[in-house]
This record gives sequence, structure tokens and C-alpha cells, in this order.
Amino acid sequence: MACDDNKPKIGIGLIGSGFMGRCHANAFGAVSGLFDLPARPVKSVLADATDEIAAAGARALGFARATADWRSLVADDAVRVVAITAPNVLHEPMALEAIAAGKAVYCEKPLSTTAASALKMTEAAEAAGVVTSVGFNFLRNPMIRLARDIVSSGEIGEVTGFRGRHAENYMADPRTPHSFRTDPQGGGALADIGSHIISMARHLLGPIAEVSADCRTIHSERPVSANSADRKPVAVDDMTHALLRFASGISGSIEANWAASGRTMDLSFEITGSRGAVAFSQERMNELLVYSGSGARAGYRRIEAGPSHPPYGRFCPAPGHHLGFNDLKVIEVAELIHAIMENGRCMPDFREAWEVQRTVEAMQTSSSTREWVSV
Amino acid sequence: MACDDNKPKIGIGLIGSGFMGRCHANAFGAVSGLFDLPARPVKSVLADATDEIAAAGARALGFARATADWRSLVADDAVRVVAITAPNVLHEPMALEAIAAGKAVYCEKPLSTTAASALKMTEAAEAAGVVTSVGFNFLRNPMIRLARDIVSSGEIGEVTGFRGRHAENYMADPRTPHSFRTDPQGGGALADIGSHIISMARHLLGPIAEVSADCRTIHSERPVSANSADRKPVAVDDMTHALLRFASGISGSIEANWAASGRTMDLSFEITGSRGAVAFSQERMNELLVYSGSGARAGYRRIEAGPSHPPYGRFCPAPGHHLGFNDLKVIEVAELIHAIMENGRCMPDFREAWEVQRTVEAMQTSSSTREWVSV
Amino acid sequence: MACDDNKPKIGIGLIGSGFMGRCHANAFGAVSGLFDLPARPVKSVLADATDEIAAAGARALGFARATADWRSLVADDAVRVVAITAPNVLHEPMALEAIAAGKAVYCEKPLSTTAASALKMTEAAEAAGVVTSVGFNFLRNPMIRLARDIVSSGEIGEVTGFRGRHAENYMADPRTPHSFRTDPQGGGALADIGSHIISMARHLLGPIAEVSADCRTIHSERPVSANSADRKPVAVDDMTHALLRFASGISGSIEANWAASGRTMDLSFEITGSRGAVAFSQERMNELLVYSGSGARAGYRRIEAGPSHPPYGRFCPAPGHHLGFNDLKVIEVAELIHAIMENGRCMPDFREAWEVQRTVEAMQTSSSTREWVSV
Amino acid sequence: MACDDNKPKIGIGLIGSGFMGRCHANAFGAVSGLFDLPARPVKSVLADATDEIAAAGARALGFARATADWRSLVADDAVRVVAITAPNVLHEPMALEAIAAGKAVYCEKPLSTTAASALKMTEAAEAAGVVTSVGFNFLRNPMIRLARDIVSSGEIGEVTGFRGRHAENYMADPRTPHSFRTDPQGGGALADIGSHIISMARHLLGPIAEVSADCRTIHSERPVSANSADRKPVAVDDMTHALLRFASGISGSIEANWAASGRTMDLSFEITGSRGAVAFSQERMNELLVYSGSGARAGYRRIEAGPSHPPYGRFCPAPGHHLGFNDLKVIEVAELIHAIMENGRCMPDFREAWEVQRTVEAMQTSSSTREWVSV
Repeated sequence: MACDDNKPKIGIGLIGSGFMGRCHANAFGAVSGLFDLPARPVKSVLADATDEIAAAGARALGFARATADWRSLVADDAVRVVAITAPNVLHEPMALEAIAAGKAVYCEKPLSTTAASALKMTEAAEAAGVVTSVGFNFLRNPMIRLARDIVSSGEIGEVTGFRGRHAENYMADPRTPHSFRTDPQGGGALADIGSHIISMARHLLGPIAEVSADCRTIHSERPVSANSADRKPVAVDDMTHALLRFASGISGSIEANWAASGRTMDLSFEITGSRGAVAFSQERMNELLVYSGSGARAGYRRIEAGPSHPPYGRFCPAPGHHLGFNDLKVIEVAELIHAIMENGRCMPDFREAWEVQRTVEAMQTSSSTREWVSV
Repeated sequence: MACDDNKPKIGIGLIGSGFMGRCHANAFGAVSGLFDLPARPVKSVLADATDEIAAAGARALGFARATADWRSLVADDAVRVVAITAPNVLHEPMALEAIAAGKAVYCEKPLSTTAASALKMTEAAEAAGVVTSVGFNFLRNPMIRLARDIVSSGEIGEVTGFRGRHAENYMADPRTPHSFRTDPQGGGALADIGSHIISMARHLLGPIAEVSADCRTIHSERPVSANSADRKPVAVDDMTHALLRFASGISGSIEANWAASGRTMDLSFEITGSRGAVAFSQERMNELLVYSGSGARAGYRRIEAGPSHPPYGRFCPAPGHHLGFNDLKVIEVAELIHAIMENGRCMPDFREAWEVQRTVEAMQTSSSTREWVSV
Repeated sequence: MACDDNKPKIGIGLIGSGFMGRCHANAFGAVSGLFDLPARPVKSVLADATDEIAAAGARALGFARATADWRSLVADDAVRVVAITAPNVLHEPMALEAIAAGKAVYCEKPLSTTAASALKMTEAAEAAGVVTSVGFNFLRNPMIRLARDIVSSGEIGEVTGFRGRHAENYMADPRTPHSFRTDPQGGGALADIGSHIISMARHLLGPIAEVSADCRTIHSERPVSANSADRKPVAVDDMTHALLRFASGISGSIEANWAASGRTMDLSFEITGSRGAVAFSQERMNELLVYSGSGARAGYRRIEAGPSHPPYGRFCPAPGHHLGFNDLKVIEVAELIHAIMENGRCMPDFREAWEVQRTVEAMQTSSSTREWVSV
Repeated sequence: MACDDNKPKIGIGLIGSGFMGRCHANAFGAVSGLFDLPARPVKSVLADATDEIAAAGARALGFARATADWRSLVADDAVRVVAITAPNVLHEPMALEAIAAGKAVYCEKPLSTTAASALKMTEAAEAAGVVTSVGFNFLRNPMIRLARDIVSSGEIGEVTGFRGRHAENYMADPRTPHSFRTDPQGGGALADIGSHIISMARHLLGPIAEVSADCRTIHSERPVSANSADRKPVAVDDMTHALLRFASGISGSIEANWAASGRTMDLSFEITGSRGAVAFSQERMNELLVYSGSGARAGYRRIEAGPSHPPYGRFCPAPGHHLGFNDLKVIEVAELIHAIMENGRCMPDFREAWEVQRTVEAMQTSSSTREWVSV
């Protein structure tokens, strides 16, 4: 019995087959079996730096065709979504060409190497009316949806404070060499992972109006490459602490730190309200702590992810079984397909990513001038 | 550029498109993009109860063909692996027919409704020399691999005690109706989820020699179906506590409990040794607690899953990002493909599943006779 | 300005100035400043093995007089309460003589070396009508009072299961020598610390009716004394696992383990009900976990000790500041003074301690006979 | 047998019998039974606002005499230590008079209402050569001693970052009325509890050189008294976030927050080093988290307080039994007695308390001027 359905097909063109490329491919492959979408993504074309890499990637990841020329991928009639997981410096030209071709663009974060570039991309996309999506996948977590519902519904009363952080340890060792991450253009802990906690703060509490930040380089030199004896200076921050004032008047702080020994994925926050609080860390991404109750019963409740927290039930009908990081990417892709088919906005889009990026730049400016800076 | 690879293809025939069927399909679809396998699984045929269900499942899950006749699936030349996610009572006939056809069999747990049936299936598979695998997927967790390495290497000294549990709350409410889970043939908390902690105990510490168990029905009646006013007696246990003696002399206890308010997925254990200990709960499946150190530095260390814990790195190059439940199924499928291509044994296989099942039955016997029972 | 009050004075005679003796003395000294008691305990006489030890103890602990003759302490007119912290084998003669003299008796656990002896002491005390108290101080914790209130009020629905444990690691090392703890008369992990979890289980859920237990000696030999090369066999258990049936029909399990690497003071339990659950460990004695809520808000709430949990407020007006182990002893003493002045019963008294002790013996019997034993 | 020892006696004069007064009295009463001190404190005189309050306090707390005139207490020949737990505004005159009389002064924090006043007190004490001690009792915790040893020994490598906080919820409710805490002179969250995390930061990492702070009043009005309908403006901060640069170059942040719903006593920090990290919260004051290890074994180890962590063993010979808040005060008193008898410095003394206070004021200045401020 033949089984092809009559759903519309959406051809995917994926640029890049590294870590994030694999995540994208896996998500596009899995999403139709997990979500009931209005269209079916089809893995059409994969582009990478050389024919060999592209072909190997396409075979492993299940794409129909491969190319070393990303421009031909963008131009390909079968491709309706251009998914960009290439180096940051290429995001702008790739996205602009895809926008010009009327394609939806799904780009990894950071959107570009400067806020100015991100704004240019945003304005091009808006002028062309194409759907855009940027891979701040941690926002897709059902427990983050729950946190946002709790905050916005007034369940914890008036919000009074925010304390956020993204701390990891992958650059804690001074022997870890330079890489694209330490490139002055777009690199540093604040840009690399601070952007996640900034996007989270905006997602949960709205715009950030003013910042006072302290960016610090812990290891002033690093090897030029792995195992090299040559060392050169580091021009980006390893750790940034910042004070925040949100447009709503809420105040708080964030930390971005890629040299935080002991932390692997501490994208975390605590939001304090007049009647309750919520706390979360990505290190325990299937849990949300919610403070409620009074008197002898007041306490932080540990809520475990389950089917009561959409779209968890798409992955598993029983609570406590855990979503993983790659599942967040599947949710991101499902929302992208919906936006494309329903002409909706897929948040966070290019404009939102630009907002994040200019907040990063305001913090960098504040650290240089040692003054509060309006975003 | 064409991208088809020259890897052997392994045709998958999947029986059942419910929760576990979707898990299987997702795993077969994702595994090639994540693991470097000696062959590529291909989703060939999906069987379910009716043509409509089968066709809908095949479309959603990406199978080439669909059928309402599982026997035709088994007989299909394109099918090399028969994956069984049908009701437990059908496992034996389906598996025996697949074995007779020389197919590898990948069956969900419990292997069958009785240990006798499970043994029959085991002996048939061994006589035919086909690869078998049973879906005790929790054993696939990288943190369980780590726990097993730590225990078997002597890192915690001589093992002295075991304390295990599988507790969930899905039957805690007396209004939850009868279902296949409460069927006297093969149902009950001990058989349904106690089997997981038994398989875990065996995986980590070897055979269980003797048991003294106390099976208890908490809710003596349940509605015959959802929202029905008709109630009928419950003949299976809601909760079992058991004492264990392992063949190695280690003693301990387990609990199986599907009425455990507060627990969603507490498949947990603590293994105590003369120099250390390990503790785990599936509710925090990306963590293993390992006790070590001495004097002022002794303590339980919380180890977060990362690329140092194979095969975590297949899913993500950075620690702390989390695997999810569905990822365990991908690992299970990867090991199955390896076993098929390398004529190896894929543990836990039918024989191991039979060992688990007869341990369950020994506990049930012990509870009836109120005596210690040798397994 | 003179400050002596007109409250009645209660003279304390303390036998023993070791760890528990110091606890008693500290508690009697502190209690009047913390609680508003109907009488004031006065540290009158301290007895210990020799004049020197007794005098040094009395000076350090603030007793007016000292003696090497406990019988003179018991006979002393100034002494109204005899507090016994001497070796277990002496509890019976000391208590019987104090009872005969009409004194209240405050005895450390275990009450005696056998249940028969404990019963003899109980019957003597009841016949004489003296107040007795036994030092199961962990029951005095405000969080245990909260747990008991929650369980008895029906807040978690009908109780369905119990899982208890007292695990420490002080005998985990096979080089730890023999001591009074390994004396066949009254020693072993079950008698030493298992008695705590048994008293806790009874305190929270009532009488235990039947048991099936497995007592195991992990280290079959130990040095006769510290650093000795001479070793002799161990005749007591290092670890006991037991199944329980309470008189109420609830079933469950306990573990007593003094060789539990990784655990320092895991006197812990989880009580499961049809609508909620409570969980506790003495390792976090200022917290009670209470499961409640439904749907998307269900979860274990971590309640921190505070003034809402009497008598916490006697020690500190602010929550979260922590009571310590020694504070539990102060509460125990406050309840003793109240019972003496109000002719009340001070639970746990000798009778309750006897109930605990015969439950221990029933478990030992069960392990020997390998049968279920009624308590 | 008489038991008076020949140790020197140290007469204590306590001013105030409220919460902190009771803590002091309890500590002076208990310390000789727990520590082997070179002298024995004797509770001589208690002063409070009226004769009645003083007499009642003296009776409850075991002082020999009572007075409504603190000057007579200071002048009393029996008094060698003046312990001040009176309102903050009285600290200066009381301390200056005690210093003039050559008495040791043990003062609750904050030392005074302004840094200028604190400096005056400091200089007077140093000129007179009297021992001073200020009640930053949280520093006395054995786990803080452990943290300091780990940091200062280089065990976690070079320290790179600090993240500190003192958050409680006692002012979270806008209906909580004005009190001395909201008095512009010396009040506010930063002065009240922020001082604790500042003293902790200095204790662990040394002087703070520069700050950028944001003090915020969450509830702009509060009732003038409990249940009053009259409200008046609040002139102090409910919450302060601050960036720090230590003299050593380490950067970090702190938060002081008395409106932090969900937090009862979160005096907490995380110190990150190049090879490890330590983390602590007073809410779990008997635990220190220490990150160490590498590869597959790296993780945060939860170290439970025990006799390996002096002076825990003074309170209990077994680990995991817990010290409480009041025990910290006993340690503080023991250190004071040692300093008095050995002419040593008792840290934190007046000078250190002044350093904390001027750091608080630097933060307040920074918040007003919106500039970085050198301390």
C-alpha cells in the first residue's frame, strides 16, 4: 500500500554540516513524525565548503543533493528554506541572497558579526516579506514556555527582579587556543553565550533599556592553535558581568562566562515577583522551580516536564522521561514550518536577533566607557 | 551532485505506530545522521491494526509501504528487521514467525506475557541464530555505561549493597481505569516497570539468586474504562517491595510502584561499595552521582553527561546539553545495526529478557507463598 | 537588681559525660533561655566512671557536684530527673533504681540490650508512675512534626506506601575495629541505627505488624581494637533490608546500613499517599519535601524550616537560618520538663522504646528463620 | 564533690535581650561545655530598656543581675566584655564608653549607622588596645573555613570570578510596614544583609577596590506600622545589584535583596577558579560544593560538614548531623574568649566592619552618581 501523503512539501537547503548542521538535518528529518504539520519538510540540498564534505554530509544526513556552491543552493527551485549554519561572517551575504530570492531564512545565532549588519539583514527580510528564524533554541523548551506563562499571567505577582547567567567552562583552560570564538569581530563570551541569556531575558521580561557592564579578559594570551607554542593576545572578554534596567523598570543582572569551571550549560535565571518566583537552569532543562504557597507550606516546587507542558507530549506521552537538546531544535523547526505555511512571524526572528545583538554591543560600549549605556 | 552512499541497506518492518512505534521510527530515521554505522536502516513497511491506521502511520513516520497484515510484513523480502511494538500478547506469535523467516527481531518489553513464553521465544531465536534485541532502553544511557564501568572496574571497591526502585504515578489515582496494564496476564507494577529496575540491577551487578517479595494491590477496584461507573476488581499489584540476594552475595532491595505520587520516572538506584558509591535516577538522566574522596574532601560528585561519556558525543559535542528519552532509543537502534552487521549479540537480547521475566515471576511466587524463592 | 525567678527548680542528675552526656548538659543549660517552661532545670550532679572524669565533666558542663557512684546520684535529694547516657548494658539497673526512687528517667536509646529487659523497665516505670523519655531525638525536628501533621490530616490522601532508611558510613571500612557497637548483645546496624528509622516509621504511620528481613554481615572479621593485627569474627549485621506491613495495611521497606559509603546521616523516608507525598532526609534536616498540585503545576515543594514550623521560632525568628542536631536535644528536654510538671506522657517513652526494640528483634528473627514474623 | 574549676572567669555584660541578645546569652552559656577555653565566660549583667524587661531577660537567660542603665553595666567591675545587641544608633555611644573603660567590645552588625561613625569607633578601639569583635557570624561556619582554605591554598587554581548574593524575602510584601530597617540612616537591603555578602567576599577574596551599583526601591510606600492605613514613602533600597572589582583584579557581582520571594537565607556565592570552583548557600549551611576532577569524572562534589571540618567536632563527633545558626554564635564567642586571653585580634573586628560599611556606602554613592566608585 502506497503511503505518500498529499501534504505540501517544503524543500530545505542546508548550508553547513558541522554540529549545528547535523542538528538542523536531524530536526527536519524527525519533525513530521512528531508534529502534525501543515507541510512536510524535505531534505533537498546540502552545501558545504568542498564537494567531498558536502557529499559526505548529504549522505549521512539524508539530503538528496550536495554542492560546494551555496549560491546554487540558494538559487535552487527545490529549496524554499535556506538554513544557514556557516561561519558567522558569511551569514550576511548568504541571508541577503536568500532574501533576494524570496526564500525563508533560518539562521544560526549570532545573526551576524555586528548589530549594524544584523539590522541590514533584518530590514532586507522585512522589505521582502520573507519568514526568518534565528536559532535561539533554548527558548523552545516547554519549561521556558511554562515560565513565560507564569510570569506573564501574574501568577507570581508583579515582577521585581531578574538574575540571569550563561556560564560554561569550555574556555576556562588558558591552554585552549584561539578560534573563531576569540575573533575580535563578533567573538567573546558575551557575544557567544551572553546572547542566549539576553534573548532569554527579553523573551521573559521584554526589552532591556539600560546597561552597565564589566567585560574582562581572564587569559590575556592563548596559543594560536592547538598544541602550538606560539601565543598571541586575546582581545575579547572571557567573562562579563552586567547590571540591567528593563524598559518595564525591573532591574537585575546577568553574567556571561565561558571560563566558569564547574558549569557546563548554566543558562539560568531566577525571576522574583511580589508573590512568587521562578528559577531555571539549562543543566536541568526538564525542571522548572516555581515558588508559591504561604506560611508553613511556602516553598519552591520542582515541576518536571511532562505532557501538561506543550509540546512535550509530541515527544513522549509520559512525564519525567526527558527532552534533550536536539528535541529543542525539532520544536524550532516545527514553529518555522507553521510560520511559513501560515505567513506568520516566527519568533525570535531577524529583528529580535538584532535587538539581542545591539544589547550585546551596548554592554561592550558600557564596559569601555565605564558608564551606563542606553540600548 | 548525487549523494546516495554505497552502504548496505537494512529494511525495517515496524509493527505498531503508537508511542513506542513512533520512538522506533524516529530512531531508525535519525540514527544514520548521528552514528557512523556499517549499514543504513531504511523504513520499509509499517503494519498496524487497520489499513487506515497503518497508512496514516506510514505517512507520518516515513515508511515506504503500509499493511494491516503483520504476517505479510514479516514475509516481505525488503524487511530484514522486524520491530515489534504491538500488544504484549502478540509478541510471541510475531517473534516466532519472524524468527522462522530468519529475520532479526527487535521487540519491546516485556518480551512476553509469561516467562515460559519468553523462554520459548529465546530458544527459537537461539536455534535460528537470529539477532534479537529487547527495548530496555534505559540501559543505553551514557551515564549507565559510566556507572557500570565504575562498578566493574573496582573504582568503588567491593560492592556491598544495592537499593533500587522504579516508581511512577500514572496509576496513583483510583479513578484511573483498567487497561492492558491491569490484565492479570502480564500486568501489574512489578511486571510493567519493576522489570526495568530488575534489568538494571542485572546489568550492573549480575544475576539475582533469591528474592522475598511483597506484592500489594492498593486500589482493589478500578473503573472498567475511562469515566465508567462500572468497577471491577484489580488482580495485579500496584506496588511491590522485594529483598534481593544476588548470585555474588550482594544483598539489597527493590521497589516497583506505579502509584507513587510525586514520582514521574524514578528508575533509580544506589550502589554502595567499600570505597565509594554511585547513585542515579532517570528523573535526572544526564547526571550520575559518584561518591569518592576521603576526609575533608569526601562527597558525592555530580557528574554531568558530556562527550567524555560515549556515545553522548554522537548527539552533541558539548557537555551539559542533555540527551532525552528518545535519544536512548537511537542508541539502542545503533547497537542493533552493529550486532546485525557483525553477527554479534545485542544485549539485552531475548535470553536476558527472559531472565528478567522469570525474576518477576519469582517475586510474584514469593509474595503468594510468603517465602524466599530462588530465581 | 536580683534576677532569680520563682519558677520551680528541677534538679538534673546526669550519668555519663561523653558525646551524649555533653548533648544533655548543653540542652539542660540552654532550654530555659529558649523555651518558656513551667520549671527551670538545674544541673545538680554528674556521675561518670571515675572521680576525675566526673569532676572534669562537671566543671566543663556546669554541674554543681560530681560523683563516681551513680547510685548516690540517683539517691540524691536534689536530683529529680536521672539522665542516663551510660553504656547500654547499664541502662536497666540504673533506670530500675531511679524508678524505685521515684525519679523521672531520661534514657538514651536503645532503651536496653534486649526487648525483654526494655519491657521490664517499662513495666516498672508504669507501675511507679514516673515520667520516662527515650532519646530518639530525630523525632523532635519541626520538619518531622510538619510531616506528621501532613500525613495525619489527610493532606496527602490515603497513605499507600513507605520507604525508609537509616544509612551511615562509620563502619564501611573493614579496618574499623570492634567496639560496643559490634557486641552481639544489642549491637549491629539494625539495633544501632535501624531503631531510628523504626521509631520514625511508628511515629508517622503507627504500629508495624509484620516483617520479613535480611540481615547481612558485610565484613566478617574486624580488628579487635584500633590498629591491632588481631582480628575476630563479627556476629552482628552491617546492613539489613526489611519488608514491612503496618497494622494499618500500608506496606513498605526499610534499610539499616552502617557501611553505606557516601551517606553520613541518611535517616530518610518517603511516604506516598493517594494525593501527595512527603520526603525527608536528616542530611537536610531543615527541609521537608511535599508533593502536591496537579497538572502543569504538580511537583515536590521544598519547604524550608522557619517560625511557621513550631518550635523553630524558639531558636530563631527568621526562616532558613537552620536548626542543628544539638537543638533537637533542647526540644526533647523542653518536652520532658513539660511532661514532668504536667504529669503527662513524654513520647517516645519507655513503652514506645520497647515497641521499637521488639520490632528490631522480630526482624532479626525473620532473618534467621527466613520467614515473615509478626511483631 | 565540689567542681569549680580554677580557670579565669570573664564577666559578660549583655546589652539587649531580643533575638540577638538571646543568641549571645545562649552562646556564652554553652561555649564552655563545647570548647576547651582558656577562661570561662560568666553571665554577669544584662541591660535592657526598662527594669522589667531587663529583669525578665536576666532570669530567662541566666544573668546574675539586671539593669535599665547600660552605663552602669559598662562601668561594672564584674564586666570584662560588653556585648552590644541594642539598636544600631546606640552602638557608637555604647562602644565608645566601653572602650574608654578598657572593656572588650562584642558588637552586632552593622557596626554603626555610617562608615564615619564606624571609623571613629575603630580608631578609639585601636588606640585603647581593646579586643573588638563584630557579629558577622556566618563567617564562623566550618564550611566557610573550608571554602577559604580551598581558595587560599590554590586548590581551585587562580581565582577568576565571584558571584555573590544575600537574598531573603522578609520585605517582599508591600504590606510589611516601616521599621528601623527602612530608616534612611543605616537601613535598606544593602546595609542590612548586603553587608553579609560583602564581608563574606572580603573574607574569601580580600579587599574590594571598585564598584558599580544599582540600588532600587521596589515598594515606594509602606504602612507606617503594622495594620496601619497610613503609608509613607520608602527612602531605602529593597534590592541592589552591583559589579565588583577586587584589589586582586578578580571581577564579579553581588546582589542584596530583601524582597526576594522564594529565598529565606540565600547568603550564597560561587567562586570560579582556573582549575575548580566552590559554591555555597547558607540555606544549606552544612554543605560545600567543590568542583574538581577532569574528563569523565569532573563534577561538583557535595561535601557534608563533619569532624574533618573544624570546629564541627566540638559540637558532634559524627558527620552529617548538622550545625545550626545558633552554633555559629558559639564559635564566634569561643574565638572572642581566645582573643581576649591571648591578646590577639578577633576577626572580623571593628576595622573590618568599617571596611564593609564603607563598601556599602561606595555602592550607594555609585547608584546615585551612576558611576564606578573606588572604595
